Amino acid sequence: MHMATEQDFEVESMHYNRLLLAVDDDDDDSSHKAFNYAATLAKIYNIPLGIVSVLETGDLNIYQSLSPDLLADRRSQMAAHLNTYVEKAEAFGAQDVQPLIGEGKPAAVILDEIVPAFKPDLIVLGSHERRGRSRLGHVAAEIAREADASVIIVR
Amino acid sequence: MHMATEQDFEVESMHYNRLLLAVDDDDDDSSHKAFNYAATLAKIYNIPLGIVSVLETGDLNIYQSLSPDLLADRRSQMAAHLNTYVEKAEAFGAQDVQPLIGEGKPAAVILDEIVPAFKPDLIVLGSHERRGRSRLGHVAAEIAREADASVIIVR
Repeated sequence: MHMATEQDFEVESMHYNRLLLAVDDDDDDSSHKAFNYAATLAKIYNIPLGIVSVLETGDLNIYQSLSPDLLADRRSQMAAHLNTYVEKAEAFGAQDVQPLIGEGKPAAVILDEIVPAFKPDLIVLGSHERRGRSRLGHVAAEIAREADASVIIVR
Repeated sequence: MHMATEQDFEVESMHYNRLLLAVDDDDDDSSHKAFNYAATLAKIYNIPLGIVSVLETGDLNIYQSLSPDLLADRRSQMAAHLNTYVEKAEAFGAQDVQPLIGEGKPAAVILDEIVPAFKPDLIVLGSHERRGRSRLGHVAAEIAREADASVIIVR
């Protein structure tokens, strides 16, 4: 017990100022809730919202054998998907929404490239629960564990 | 890609309505930030806040050998610690703050007893980072993974 610590501690209001939402092409109920929550915070607090999507190329041998044309198709599909989210957030009332694109292993790209560049103080993730399997997807779990920012897992 | 899904999806405001904050006697910077964030949300949205503390008895052989007096002391220390937090949250302006006490293995008690009884839609946790070791304590990691509610890990 460190009784002094909580006695001395002064309560202060705490708000987040810069949000990063990760989306993928695996839309599910938790993705939509995560989007709704991030868009709501961005709108009511008038704070920047980055929306990141990562084209997964790291572990998947399939991508090594994709033709350049097919890979270009995947990139443009992903960009279109991301832009749909950006437009929806703006239409909802978020003022400053930025699309962010990465390529590689999703958790590593988000942790090592996107977060250091965008500098969010809160990362918003869907849980990506798999029915009958895990209650938390492995990308979300890795980001929650390793990120240098607060993380909310939306269910 | 499931293009239809995000095209059709309607953005809706999303707020949380019932908060559960877990505190332990291991106060650290992330605990205080988690407390500040939970108290801020409870105040500005005028929503109930439960604050739970679990007397850890599950794995610790030491507790098996504690005298009844010493165990009673630990219980009353923990209750005092928890009440300090409840009073601070109320003084800060949260209207409906409930202390919740458990005993056993912290993650299991919170997941299996406290959450089903209190029914939070958002669980607020400090990261309990260990310098040079993990960026997320194992109790927080287990709750983030298994909870039947959204979880925010505050850093």
